[in-house]
Amino acid sequence: MSFSPVQSDNIAIATIRALAADVVTKANSGHPGAPMGMAPAAHVLFSRFVNANPKNSKWFNRDRFVLSNGHACALQYVLLHLLGYKLSMDDLKAFRQLDSLTPGHPEAGHTDGILLNRIERKVFLNDNFRSGVEVTTGPLGQGFGNGVGLAMAQAHLAATFNKDGFDLINNYTYVFCGDGCLMEGVASEAASLAGHLQLGNLIVVYDDNHISIDGDTNVAFTENVDQRFQSYGWQVLVVNNGDTDLAEIYNAITQAKSEKNKPTIIRLKTTIGYGSKQQGTHGVHGSPLKADDIQALKTKFGLPADQSFYVPQETYDAYAQIVKRGASLESEWNSLLSSYSQKYPKEHAELSRRIAGELPADWEKNLPVYKPTDAAVASRKLSEIALTAITPVLPELFGGSADLTGSNLTKVKGTVDFQPPSTGLGNYAGTYIRFGVREHGMGAIANGIAAYGGIIPFVATFLNFVSYAAGATRLSALSGHQVIWVATHDSIGLGEDGPTHQPVETAIHLRATPNLAFWRPADGNETSAAYYSAITSKKTPSVLSLSRQNLINLEGSTVEKALKGGYVLHEEQNEDLTIVSTGSEVPIAVEAAAKLKAEGIKTRVVSLPCWLTFDQQPEHYRLSVLRSGAPILSLELSHHEQYGLTGWGASGPYQKVYEKFGITGSNIAVVGKKVVDFYKQKGGPVVSPLIKAF
Amino acid sequence: MSFSPVQSDNIAIATIRALAADVVTKANSGHPGAPMGMAPAAHVLFSRFVNANPKNSKWFNRDRFVLSNGHACALQYVLLHLLGYKLSMDDLKAFRQLDSLTPGHPEAGHTDGILLNRIERKVFLNDNFRSGVEVTTGPLGQGFGNGVGLAMAQAHLAATFNKDGFDLINNYTYVFCGDGCLMEGVASEAASLAGHLQLGNLIVVYDDNHISIDGDTNVAFTENVDQRFQSYGWQVLVVNNGDTDLAEIYNAITQAKSEKNKPTIIRLKTTIGYGSKQQGTHGVHGSPLKADDIQALKTKFGLPADQSFYVPQETYDAYAQIVKRGASLESEWNSLLSSYSQKYPKEHAELSRRIAGELPADWEKNLPVYKPTDAAVASRKLSEIALTAITPVLPELFGGSADLTGSNLTKVKGTVDFQPPSTGLGNYAGTYIRFGVREHGMGAIANGIAAYGGIIPFVATFLNFVSYAAGATRLSALSGHQVIWVATHDSIGLGEDGPTHQPVETAIHLRATPNLAFWRPADGNETSAAYYSAITSKKTPSVLSLSRQNLINLEGSTVEKALKGGYVLHEEQNEDLTIVSTGSEVPIAVEAAAKLKAEGIKTRVVSLPCWLTFDQQPEHYRLSVLRSGAPILSLELSHHEQYGLTGWGASGPYQKVYEKFGITGSNIAVVGKKVVDFYKQKGGPVVSPLIKAF
Ligand SMILES: [Ca+2]
Ligand SMILES: [Ca+2]
Repeated sequence: MSFSPVQSDNIAIATIRALAADVVTKANSGHPGAPMGMAPAAHVLFSRFVNANPKNSKWFNRDRFVLSNGHACALQYVLLHLLGYKLSMDDLKAFRQLDSLTPGHPEAGHTDGILLNRIERKVFLNDNFRSGVEVTTGPLGQGFGNGVGLAMAQAHLAATFNKDGFDLINNYTYVFCGDGCLMEGVASEAASLAGHLQLGNLIVVYDDNHISIDGDTNVAFTENVDQRFQSYGWQVLVVNNGDTDLAEIYNAITQAKSEKNKPTIIRLKTTIGYGSKQQGTHGVHGSPLKADDIQALKTKFGLPADQSFYVPQETYDAYAQIVKRGASLESEWNSLLSSYSQKYPKEHAELSRRIAGELPADWEKNLPVYKPTDAAVASRKLSEIALTAITPVLPELFGGSADLTGSNLTKVKGTVDFQPPSTGLGNYAGTYIRFGVREHGMGAIANGIAAYGGIIPFVATFLNFVSYAAGATRLSALSGHQVIWVATHDSIGLGEDGPTHQPVETAIHLRATPNLAFWRPADGNETSAAYYSAITSKKTPSVLSLSRQNLINLEGSTVEKALKGGYVLHEEQNEDLTIVSTGSEVPIAVEAAAKLKAEGIKTRVVSLPCWLTFDQQPEHYRLSVLRSGAPILSLELSHHEQYGLTGWGASGPYQKVYEKFGITGSNIAVVGKKVVDFYKQKGGPVVSPLIKAF
Repeated sequence: MSFSPVQSDNIAIATIRALAADVVTKANSGHPGAPMGMAPAAHVLFSRFVNANPKNSKWFNRDRFVLSNGHACALQYVLLHLLGYKLSMDDLKAFRQLDSLTPGHPEAGHTDGILLNRIERKVFLNDNFRSGVEVTTGPLGQGFGNGVGLAMAQAHLAATFNKDGFDLINNYTYVFCGDGCLMEGVASEAASLAGHLQLGNLIVVYDDNHISIDGDTNVAFTENVDQRFQSYGWQVLVVNNGDTDLAEIYNAITQAKSEKNKPTIIRLKTTIGYGSKQQGTHGVHGSPLKADDIQALKTKFGLPADQSFYVPQETYDAYAQIVKRGASLESEWNSLLSSYSQKYPKEHAELSRRIAGELPADWEKNLPVYKPTDAAVASRKLSEIALTAITPVLPELFGGSADLTGSNLTKVKGTVDFQPPSTGLGNYAGTYIRFGVREHGMGAIANGIAAYGGIIPFVATFLNFVSYAAGATRLSALSGHQVIWVATHDSIGLGEDGPTHQPVETAIHLRATPNLAFWRPADGNETSAAYYSAITSKKTPSVLSLSRQNLINLEGSTVEKALKGGYVLHEEQNEDLTIVSTGSEVPIAVEAAAKLKAEGIKTRVVSLPCWLTFDQQPEHYRLSVLRSGAPILSLELSHHEQYGLTGWGASGPYQKVYEKFGITGSNIAVVGKKVVDFYKQKGGPVVSPLIKAF
């Protein structure tokens, strides 16, 4: 099929350009250049290719669109408005204003056409809200990685559910990105993996406008992008005139779609801020256009120079046709799904369950429970046992490790690799992903997989290297993506690998990230609780911080108690002291408490595996755990206000490293005694730290 | 020149392989495979090429060697031993044991032949210690980035100090790396920039052994590495037989050295664990060899099978020759330096000063000081003013921004870009670096620049994107690299860019990193103090967290007070309350204190711009600032235990965002009153939080 231009194309493009300029100028903040430059590609893509129904942004087989250069969101908001998503002209006028639907960068779930709910916002859309904005973007490179994840999810679900004559899941993922995204390592990592995985359903449009914030890209970005993507195994196409040659854009996207075994990057040569007096310069990148510039631009484009936020009826009409097409596509798909339900009732039920994000009944009964007499096992191994137990009943688990499979213990026996069939190493229905040593890419990809729906992604590396992916984990938490991080080798208990691999600052960092559940289980039951929480928390990423070394199963721990995030592991009435601890230090706290008891100091022990979860418990419960009346000593092997580390760890067998830093039952007992004496001497009531002034 | 093999070559290589296997087996922990595979390349490199004097690891013009695949450190330790660095056979036998000189991964300054001092270690080497291990490696990809930084530093200092006939600074930087490093985005970023910068002094030897932890690299890493590096503008060479063809290795390195305008990557095809029964498999990657395997290997290599840690005298003798050559190279260089001092006394004095890491006398007098009547200015702008003031007297400042120059305000007027002269955009003597949008690469590069010596590197991005570089900042702190991060747009005060760009968790993360000075100045004097501290802290990286919005100059702030890290900004006797705050919230605390005073509540205000620095003050001082007797309210716009944020920020003009979260003088006054009432009701003495039980 070749491109058939219609009269309304050029008007629509002019309108998008002018509207984007108006939006930014009214806000007096934002980025007009890229939206104006990419307007033709966006118009051709949305008018001719994107299969989506703006009237139902939840339609599962919709094409996914990701604006990886999220600062260009004026473009996305304008398109969502024209396409009839729930975004009014007033919303456009409120661009970047407090509590508007059009924040400074696109936020998933916040704006219709952005996928998942933002956490802790007053303008909260409803729970099942899905949209034309699939993922949160802005931090450069993330959207590119999300796009790879969205494409992997499509390939996986297609291989899992499609049948002969039932090409149920066959959407494409389109990503727009700019120079900045391609400079970011997270995109490099994701791109290399996408090439390896032969993702023919992924199409990236790269806005090659030769401008970034520092000016001409000549100052820092002179690599041969075409050759680089060829080296990754991508199809590389070039559009020489992205400013006005709609047929060239159309043909490139057509060619991209027809390549089934490679992702495609279309290098779209554009003029940033096309139409502005400053076009082609970085002056138009991140500052509003001046009034006279906008007027001249509108005149040039044949739009009324004196009108702002103007959309010709012809453009609305043209976009209404797109909406119509989208609605009929969904309706055809629903018919197909209905036939599928006749012919494949079991698969249909399963697909419906997964799309709805419901868990199979009683899945949690598979979670292992432990008695104190069970053998001591490393919590990374407890994680493997849990994964092995639940994987058969939770086929939506789809994930893997950043080249640490044998250390993270994430590959359940019998699972098949997610690989292109031609490699002979697996197939797309496989559930185990080999991410390579690409932690940041892995994190961004997992966010994309979660955003697709129907899948619970898990990823794995050493806790220390979750930091490499900090850019992705924070967006996971901000967007409410259910991603499970299996983060083994926590604290200094990993021993011989030494300080370079000992994450003394990481627990604190992750706990300070809102809506991120950082679990540090102390034994088998707490590990099962962490999995239960991670699997059932549909809008919260979880990081499971796990030990390399063996941990005993604790007297007093149960899955139910641990699920409160914090609980009394060892109770004493009229206690002199409470020791609060997490993970591998809890058994040491227990040992210290026993020693103190022998000296007549009654010591409770509280295990606090997940602060976020504990904070969500009712006040009376929390106050019963961290109660007033006796001092609290907190113990954790991280950089710490109370008893922990004040600097870096050390390389050596872990028991010796523990001794070096005083993490032994006897030393903690000594410290505990000091705390009791200190508070005695201080006098006055000892009040729970949970009781606050405000 | 062509390769002249000598009898001792093969014996030396066999010895290195066997010794590496012994070292790992004795520790029962570590990675034998890569050391055994790379032994020939290491031997050829160190015996024929590396210009260094093991008897003086501080010699400034030494070639730098970086083991980016730091898990292969048995190789590096064995070489350091053979080369006569301060590493005995007993040290090798103590591999990965507590407080040994041979930790699990190479740590700069810890082992002779590793560059800078580790912080808070008992086995601390002396202050001026420099060595054959230039940088801390292990976390994959970092060493690659460090190598690019070392090469940039060489190019810069050469262009600055070399004269006709005085090729004083002309060392090469050699980097060994494996598959893992090349998969990491940080290496991609650094590689792309290195190509752009045409760093002909950088030679990377890539151990292409087709094995990573997950097995054959076919599972995840199938990109065309040669083509990828060509796309970056590198020379790519291939050694087909890295196992035994020493001449091929020699020729490749020779060819690499002769290419002056491009960095070179030598793809060295090797067999991992060469000589082991398990050679070529991932079984030999990260586990010790079995005893019988080691014996067979020694027999095969003609070494006594029953001896461990055996070095033939012939090998020691051969390496003694290398040491001799190194000593004479340094001595020739010292003569050259001496002539240079005659002909160019001024340049010589300056070079000597910079090598010694001394600052020019009275440099700090250039730092601006402010009065309360001075205009309100954003602290990012205050940073620009400070940089502008000190740059003329501190030519060792060498840095730039990750494509946010106009926002970070880091380019001092008149400075020249650090660029290859052929680009016409600058030259290598230029001090301003265009990093591109490559935060993680920038961080790793800055560590390498700092490790080179003679330079104080600074880097810049939004505070939010320092997180992208977390892998590099923690190694900076662990290694004690003086790197200055200009991190603008902190907290939610950046306004319109919204939550995707608002670093609510970052301050906490960075403060939890040992030996990292996180400065959040509140006004002009505090900004000058932050620069003073950052410039004079030779073994501590600093992150300067700076506002986008204007800040008033505070009554009561001085550079001297701020240099204590925390001080009483507004004093009251017999106070009812102290408000502690940082950065842009300090003026709001001051406003609240005034309102409270009007209501009869006497309120002190403490500004705490740098916790690390404050913690280093004498106890009596700290107790005078955070004193007992009245409650303390802490106020900061980050995820916070007291008054701050409990979730993400919001997109909007910053004043409105502040109001939304109650960050106004009147609301903080209300909160302050609650705190006072709470403590009154609670009763008992109010004790300083600094007074602790242990
Ligand atoms: Ca651009
Ligand atoms: Ca390898």
